[in-house]
Amino acid sequence: MTIDSLVDAGMNDLISDLQALIRQPSVSAKKVGLVECANLVAKMMQKAGINSEVLYLDDDDKTVPPIVYGEVKSRANPAAKTLLFYNHYDVQPEEPLELWEDEPFSGTVKDNKVFGRGSADDKGELITRIKAVEYFLKETGDVPCNIKFMVEGEEEVGSVHVEQYLKKYEEKLACDGVIWEFGYVDAKDRPIISLGMKGLLYVELIATGPSRDAHSSLAVLIENPAWRLVSALSTMRDEKSGRVTIKDWYKEVRPFTKQELAVISREPFDEGEFKNEYGIRRFVAGARGKDAKKALVGMPTCNIAGFDSGYIGEGAKTVLPARARAKIDFRLVPGMVPERQLARLKRHLKDHGFSDIQVNFIHGEAAARTPISDPFVKKVDEAARKAFGSSIRSVSSAGTGPMYSFVKVLKAPCISVGSTYMFARIHSPNEFARIDLLNKCTKCMGRIIEKFAAQDTLG
Amino acid sequence: MTIDSLVDAGMNDLISDLQALIRQPSVSAKKVGLVECANLVAKMMQKAGINSEVLYLDDDDKTVPPIVYGEVKSRANPAAKTLLFYNHYDVQPEEPLELWEDEPFSGTVKDNKVFGRGSADDKGELITRIKAVEYFLKETGDVPCNIKFMVEGEEEVGSVHVEQYLKKYEEKLACDGVIWEFGYVDAKDRPIISLGMKGLLYVELIATGPSRDAHSSLAVLIENPAWRLVSALSTMRDEKSGRVTIKDWYKEVRPFTKQELAVISREPFDEGEFKNEYGIRRFVAGARGKDAKKALVGMPTCNIAGFDSGYIGEGAKTVLPARARAKIDFRLVPGMVPERQLARLKRHLKDHGFSDIQVNFIHGEAAARTPISDPFVKKVDEAARKAFGSSIRSVSSAGTGPMYSFVKVLKAPCISVGSTYMFARIHSPNEFARIDLLNKCTKCMGRIIEKFAAQDTLG
Repeated sequence: MTIDSLVDAGMNDLISDLQALIRQPSVSAKKVGLVECANLVAKMMQKAGINSEVLYLDDDDKTVPPIVYGEVKSRANPAAKTLLFYNHYDVQPEEPLELWEDEPFSGTVKDNKVFGRGSADDKGELITRIKAVEYFLKETGDVPCNIKFMVEGEEEVGSVHVEQYLKKYEEKLACDGVIWEFGYVDAKDRPIISLGMKGLLYVELIATGPSRDAHSSLAVLIENPAWRLVSALSTMRDEKSGRVTIKDWYKEVRPFTKQELAVISREPFDEGEFKNEYGIRRFVAGARGKDAKKALVGMPTCNIAGFDSGYIGEGAKTVLPARARAKIDFRLVPGMVPERQLARLKRHLKDHGFSDIQVNFIHGEAAARTPISDPFVKKVDEAARKAFGSSIRSVSSAGTGPMYSFVKVLKAPCISVGSTYMFARIHSPNEFARIDLLNKCTKCMGRIIEKFAAQDTLG
Repeated sequence: MTIDSLVDAGMNDLISDLQALIRQPSVSAKKVGLVECANLVAKMMQKAGINSEVLYLDDDDKTVPPIVYGEVKSRANPAAKTLLFYNHYDVQPEEPLELWEDEPFSGTVKDNKVFGRGSADDKGELITRIKAVEYFLKETGDVPCNIKFMVEGEEEVGSVHVEQYLKKYEEKLACDGVIWEFGYVDAKDRPIISLGMKGLLYVELIATGPSRDAHSSLAVLIENPAWRLVSALSTMRDEKSGRVTIKDWYKEVRPFTKQELAVISREPFDEGEFKNEYGIRRFVAGARGKDAKKALVGMPTCNIAGFDSGYIGEGAKTVLPARARAKIDFRLVPGMVPERQLARLKRHLKDHGFSDIQVNFIHGEAAARTPISDPFVKKVDEAARKAFGSSIRSVSSAGTGPMYSFVKVLKAPCISVGSTYMFARIHSPNEFARIDLLNKCTKCMGRIIEKFAAQDTLG
């Protein structure tokens, strides 16, 4: 039994549903269109035969974006195991606008691509899963295992309430395995079966200068907050090695296991192509080969996501700004606790004479990894190999997601597999989803559903 | 003879003309409203009895903003000396908009203040000079010396073409003394007779990262241009001393003369008030007393006027920016040559491993100082003391202007005296001109015209 021919026949439908999702902007950072998008997702699920509900964390306070819950019970095997699809309906901000070739929320189709903010991350992924269930029901009138959906609306701002949602709806969301919200496909069309996610500590550092912008001639007496911030930042990271220089930053980082090192060794990584894609000539600290791969899956970072101060328009305005602000994201790896790292950052600033710099905590999230030995890994891998022709295993994604919360609350293994071309410009202008990969991924999801229902005798 | 009673009687007129000037936006950094403002100034001069012309650098290419030339010849003493008023009709950008209590170009009058971008810098100054000439003509039917006006439209972007204008119209602009475009009045209503201006080197530093914004999880491999820029900047200035750490930066800085040191000693400076006004607790490098005053008139700076990179909106966008840019202004003192300092900056970046950082030269200008012994100084000082009740001499302003070009081309001494309250928020939101100071300053200009005509026998 496969749903492959229904998937092929239904591609126009899938694309048109994806366009409908893209055309409903849902930018969590700006709180734009979130409820509207949740309602649209719920409606789309209903249309597919999935029972759906829009659930709030607190029905009396709807300021927190809702989740969409979806459910299909197996009529033939009501006691079967339960597979949960985790996705998100929110997207990154569309800026910088001037670099988009089409409107960010147009869903324009060109050649093999659907363009638009969210086309890949995560509306493209979501649609493949909804369609897989729809075609399963269409083909067989049933599903072989119980299936649930949990689609949140704050993933792009750090899944702020996902753990509270998981706890509140713990029974409803109970499951035996989670298919994570995204999955990359490499340049040779091989899906990457990723078993972990890095954590994140996101902060704003704010330096305050004079009580208002001043004439820059006064820089001779008034300390410039942009200089304060530059000086503070320059103590936090070693330019050459790319390592964070905050005391004890790496204290709890555990070495890779032998099994992890073996997976890392086998994982293909085309350095030249990666560098070409981003127009760079070398990696941080000159990393190459296995070191570059180890860095991707297991190295913490300290990234300046934004810096603003003073006059940033054209011309030569001579101003001494009243304020300087940097938005910093630190990626964390298993063992690192966001709250502890935040305390280390604050102590670092104080110890280095920068106690005047305000640290605003924006978000923290621990890292998680599903063990390579979990039987779920093999099933997903086999499904992916059948649908895509091959697959790659990866110890962890370089990105962050609330996997730790899922593991902690639902106690189920999480695996990431999906349809996102690795150079699909997610989070950037001209984000796109590749139509051929949407097709293969929907087929892959069908196979995962089928395999998940089977007994684990071959573990 | 004084014009004092006409000045008092004409204040409503002066304010309404100033409002008309403010209400004509003329932002040189954005090339907004410049020709319109030049025409308005020329019309206002005509109304005052001053012959005026709008002059271009090149009549076939009007992309360079014009100057307004004004002239009144003394009928009684056609061979008398010539006094030139130098002013500018352009203003700083009005941003940040959200901090203005009234519209930036409203000219709102509240209590003793006229608010608006340009109210003080420099439309308030200009109007006192036009009115002084108008009242002189009204009172006596003549002026005792020849009077000229040179009103440019690019002062706020560094007087980019002023030297070319001076050279092209050298004969027309020939004069024996220049009253500079601005003049500060301290918190005790004492006008500051300032004899010099610092120079300026304004550059943009641009660091380039990946060919487009990337997902910040890739910071583990892709170098972040904001980090490059932070690292580069942190090598350019010593946080503690505030000194520029670029090699040979201070090589040509000459020590103060004994006469200059005497003037600096006498100059009052209320540190507490200055700090209160800007809400700061200490000066750069902990400077106090005479050291703070020496710094203001004679110390070079390196100021970050703007820094932008990545996502600067709300929320937690995790992006690795493609570009980072800093706008830097270095104030220079006599002896420092902008081009030479630029070469030193470039060499510094290269020597410190930052040859990837692009240096865009925006503007350069040398410093100038009129010798304290020049007879013009005493005349201006006497006029100011009569009109304001007291005065302060200063070796140099902390700010920059094209004084060096005037000295070089016109070979005339330049002195700064005017109506701008030292905390008038020039270049900032809620800029204002104090009406009582506009009144006193107009009277002062009348006395300068009178004294300038007299023989220098008492030099």
